[in-house]
This record gives sequence, structure tokens and C-alpha cells, in this order.
Amino acid sequence: ADQEAMRLARAHQDNLTKPRGALGVLEEVAVRLAGAAGACPPPPPSPAALAIFAADHGVHAQGVSPWPQEVTTQMVANFLAGGAVANAFAAQVGASVTVVDIGVAADLPAAPGLVVRKVARGTADLSLGPAMTSAQAVAALEVGIAVAGELIAAGAACLITGDMGIANTTASAALICAFTGQDPAVATGRGTGVDDATLDRKIAIIRRGLQVNGITGTTGGGADPDGTERGADPADAAEALRRLAAVGGLEHAALAGFILGAAAARVPVILDGVIAGSAALAACALSPAAVEYCVAGHRSAEPGHALALDHLGLRALVDLELRLGEGTGALLAYPLVGAAVRVMHEVATFDSAGVTDKNTQTAAG
Amino acid sequence: ADQEAMRLARAHQDNLTKPRGALGVLEEVAVRLAGAAGACPPPPPSPAALAIFAADHGVHAQGVSPWPQEVTTQMVANFLAGGAVANAFAAQVGASVTVVDIGVAADLPAAPGLVVRKVARGTADLSLGPAMTSAQAVAALEVGIAVAGELIAAGAACLITGDMGIANTTASAALICAFTGQDPAVATGRGTGVDDATLDRKIAIIRRGLQVNGITGTTGGGADPDGTERGADPADAAEALRRLAAVGGLEHAALAGFILGAAAARVPVILDGVIAGSAALAACALSPAAVEYCVAGHRSAEPGHALALDHLGLRALVDLELRLGEGTGALLAYPLVGAAVRVMHEVATFDSAGVTDKNTQTAAG
Repeated sequence: ADQEAMRLARAHQDNLTKPRGALGVLEEVAVRLAGAAGACPPPPPSPAALAIFAADHGVHAQGVSPWPQEVTTQMVANFLAGGAVANAFAAQVGASVTVVDIGVAADLPAAPGLVVRKVARGTADLSLGPAMTSAQAVAALEVGIAVAGELIAAGAACLITGDMGIANTTASAALICAFTGQDPAVATGRGTGVDDATLDRKIAIIRRGLQVNGITGTTGGGADPDGTERGADPADAAEALRRLAAVGGLEHAALAGFILGAAAARVPVILDGVIAGSAALAACALSPAAVEYCVAGHRSAEPGHALALDHLGLRALVDLELRLGEGTGALLAYPLVGAAVRVMHEVATFDSAGVTDKNTQTAAG
Repeated sequence: ADQEAMRLARAHQDNLTKPRGALGVLEEVAVRLAGAAGACPPPPPSPAALAIFAADHGVHAQGVSPWPQEVTTQMVANFLAGGAVANAFAAQVGASVTVVDIGVAADLPAAPGLVVRKVARGTADLSLGPAMTSAQAVAALEVGIAVAGELIAAGAACLITGDMGIANTTASAALICAFTGQDPAVATGRGTGVDDATLDRKIAIIRRGLQVNGITGTTGGGADPDGTERGADPADAAEALRRLAAVGGLEHAALAGFILGAAAARVPVILDGVIAGSAALAACALSPAAVEYCVAGHRSAEPGHALALDHLGLRALVDLELRLGEGTGALLAYPLVGAAVRVMHEVATFDSAGVTDKNTQTAAG
């Protein structure tokens, strides 16, 4: 991040006609975006583009979700018809919607708004071995990078992560364990709604998946405790890629690429919930500076999400007990991000407005 | 509230293509607005109108704020010039801005967007006696009711509360004590930024104001513990008005009227922070059903605000440590409210979209 742009952003905030710090968390968002863009004020994050990466999961066969796998396909059709909550929220906040088939098990009929980049017909079962081959994970990462680049080339100034994949909270919890070292018992939640017995099974499956894939301890991601950025250690990056492939989903890999693509273009990316958070762990293990371009849109009800955000050093903007995915939480955060940046462009300073600053007690103007 | 509309809204939410309850707090917002409007789905809360009620406070003379009183006047000019944070946020979310001089100490030059309904040149000092006469409080209430009615007549489908008044967190904390029975030591905060010594003085001033005005215990407001609505006991209402006049500000009285005006028209009103919350306590003591039309926009950093919201049974949508006022927190909540309602209009049902419902396990469509 551009430290000078961040310093200028903080100084500018302090001159605006409001008590210092009175915009709370939004002031830090504006500073973060100034650092990301290398400009103060940062450019307005408009227009915004939501990309929903859809894929299926071999681990679904272990009974970790009450929803049948075909719901992934059905919901893709629902997104394309404009009938899902993500569509309604995108319409509300003025974001475009792109749906990417990165690994849905079924064939999907061509449709406007559907981008078919299928890497595989779902992952293998992570509890029996690697969910993806290395080549598949890299292919999905590259799709994510490409989609980010295409949306930005088409004018997007803010990317928003979305996902669809029945059973993907299982892969997310496994990734969170793999990248933070947390135990599955604390990182695993009820997803879109499982009972106690299924939750216990889900935890056991994730534990087995980590063992089968030889995942112990943590690797990379985030900043060191003293705040300095870690260099992209090739060994760390190789192990990060191995872990992503071992227990991740195709949409997780694509989302990690999407985040990297946003960071490469210095465009902010608003993360949705636990799926995006776990993908961000992988992205930041591959390239630690990527976190500087991430804004945590919302805090999911999934327990693993808070662990992921803590590890990344991010604070969520919206906390409304959503547990839907699709990008819904990030879409709700988008106008808040827009408001934070707009302040930097449009609000008067004490001097320009002739308002007395308590910190100087000199009436200006 | 219309119980049948609320029941229909809950049932409709459960048929939409999302896991049940997956929209968390937003589902309850949609149900609340259905009850308020007496219709399912509730009408879109668009367009929205922010009214900023500005006034000065006699208690400012006691040194409860580091800001000079003339900042109220200066900020009104800033609102009218479009240079304040409230203007930027209103532009971001698409709300109109109306500024009402309900009691600014200085004369304000006429300007487009300024509604002059000055009841007095600021209140009297609440620590020495009643801040307002009964007649002044009623006049300010009536202005608030009238402004709500005018904005609704002009097409507003959602009202948003705003306020400006140097020292008004002192009056707010006093009102919160007067209507919830809390002690000034727990209800009083640092407002837009006071040091420890000033905070102690602020608490002592509020305590003196409650004593001088003979305010002990609580009166009215909110629902009984079992959830049944309290009737509007005339004795309660008279005492509520007396307390509002004794320790409130002119903008608090006007905001209470604004809330009552919204409720009378069955239009939702999004409350900003601690000033609106304390005004809502007065409004709901006067007319308990008014709370059914209120949505708590944000949770202020002021400790008294949480006490007020608890008393009203409301949960804030945005919690970003804002401590600015002006309506800024409520403006940020407005797109969230819009999103909650839009879901009710635009999202497909399991049947219509042909998505399998895990609760019935029958693929439809």
C-alpha cells in the first residue's frame, strides 16, 4: 500500500467538517482505499461488479449438507433469471452481476451473463485425498485472475466476491484450519443450516480431510505480529497452493485468483462471508500484499469467518447475522464503502466552510 | 402493527430461494415494515427524505462541549451548501435533505432547503430549571409532525432523522435517564469528543438537571415485558411531555414529533444515533405504538444510545463507531432497509424458480 497516500488521507479526514475520528471505521476504509489506489482521495469505487463463482464439491457425498447437490445448478439458473437475493441486492446498490461456472457438476445451458470456465465437474472428495490436482487449482486461480481483469477492463472500479456451491462451507472451514492452524471443532459451523448430528459429522470429515492431506500447522498469509509484510517465500507459496488444492473448492481457488487480480490492478475487492474469507487466506498466503486491497464486507454467522478475518487483520462492515453467501453480505457493504470514499471527495474542510475547529478554536473562512 | 401482514411476510420469507432465516436481521426489518404498512410485501421505502433539525442548548454555558455554540449555525450553513458528511451520505444513498431551524440561537439567512420554524433561540439551561416551557415543547413537537407530513405529502416513503445542535448529547443523556431510569454515570458519553474532566462535569450537570426538574424513576415508553402494547395512559403522556420539556432540546421535541408524524402516516422512520434514540423514547412514551414504525439505523458510540435502544426493543443495523450525528448513521442504514424490502418484491420462490427446498426435498418447477 502507498503509505504517503494513506498519510494524506488521514490528514485530510482530520480537516473535514466533523469531529476527528467521528466516522469511526469508515475513516479507516477510506485510508485503506487511498493506500490501495496510491491516491488521495481514492477514486470512487463505482461502478462495482459482483462475480459469483459456482462449483460443486466431492465432499457433498459425505452428507455434510442437507441440500441436494443439484441446488448449485438450480441456483445458477436463478441468478441468471434475476431471481436470487444477490440479484435483488445488486439491483439495490447498483452492481452488475456475472456468474462464472468454474466447476458445476452439471452442464449448464448457455445464457446471457453466464461465463463458462469449467475446470472440472466439481472437486474430488477432500476427505479421501486432494480435492483438486495442482493443475486444476492453478487453472481455477487463473480464471479468477482473468475474470477480475475482464471486469476491470470493462470499467469496474470495485470488485465484489460471490459464490455458490452446495457444501462449500465444509471446504471453507477446512481451508481456514489449513491456513490459520485452528481446530475444525472451532472453525466449523452450520452453514446454511445443519443439525447437531450433521455438524459433528462435518467436523469429523474436515478433520479427516486435513489428516489425509497431511496438513498440520499453518503456512503464510497475513502480516507478521510486528506488522511488517512477509515476503512471498516461494516455499510458503508452494505449500499454500498445495493446501488450497487439497481441501479447497474450485470456487475458492477462483476467488483467490479474483482477489489477486483485483490487487494486481490496485482495485479494491469487497469480500463476502466465510467462503471469500477462506479464499482470501489462500490469496494472501500466495501474495501477502493482496490483503491491502481487501475490504471485509460482512461478518458471517459461521464461526470460521471471524477466525479468518482476525488472521487477515480485517474488520467486517456489516454484521447482520446473514448466512446466505452469493455475495449478499459484500453487496450490502458496498454503499458503505462508497460513502466512505465520497466523504473524501465532497465534504468541506473547516477552512472552506468557515466552521470553527475545536482543535484550533479559530473560526475560519 | 398489522399482525396479519407480519405473518404473511414471515411466511413469504420462508418460501424464497434462500435458506430459512439466512438474511438474519434483515428478515425482521422486512417483517416490521410489513406490519407498519399493513401490507405484504411492504412498499419500497423510496424515495427517502432526511430532515435535520437544528437547535441550540442553554446548557452549553456549563462547558459540556469543547465546541463553541456558533458551530451549530456554521454547520447549518454547511448543510445548505452541501458540504457536510450528511450531504455526502445522502447523495450516496439517494435521499433528499431538508434542514429545519427549530431553535438555533442565531438568525439564519434564508436559503433554499432551509425551513425556518424557530420556536426559541435555543433552550434554557436544563441544569437550572426546565429547558423548555410546555408550550415550547408542544410547538416543537407540532413542527416535527408537520415536517413529517409535508415530506410524506411530497412523496417520501421513508423518513430519516437528522440533528445538529452543539451540546445536544448532554440533553440526550438527560432524556435517556428521564425515560429509562438509568443513572447519568452510565448514560453519559463523550459526545463529539470531551476529555475526562469535561465528561465528569457533564455527568454532574445532568444529575443536577434531573434533580432540579424533579425527575425520578421512569415513565412510559416501549412495550411491557410480555410484549403487549401499553395503552397511552394520559397521566404517563403528561409526565412524558413534562420530562421532554424539562431536559430535552428543541430538536429532540421536533424529532419526537417527526417520529409521531411518520407513525401516523404508517411510514417507516430510520433513527440516527443517540439524539434520535432519546427523542424516540419521548415519542414512544407519548404514543407507544410509534415504535413499530421505527428502524434503528445505527448504534452510536455514546453509551446512552444502547440503553435507549434496549428500552425501545430495537436493534441497530449499522455499528461502525460513528459519533457524528446529522443523520449520518441512519443514512448508511437506508440502503440496507431498501435491500430488505426489495427481497420481498423481487426474489423468486422455490416453486417459481424450480429450486429444491431442503425442508420439503421436493424439486419444484
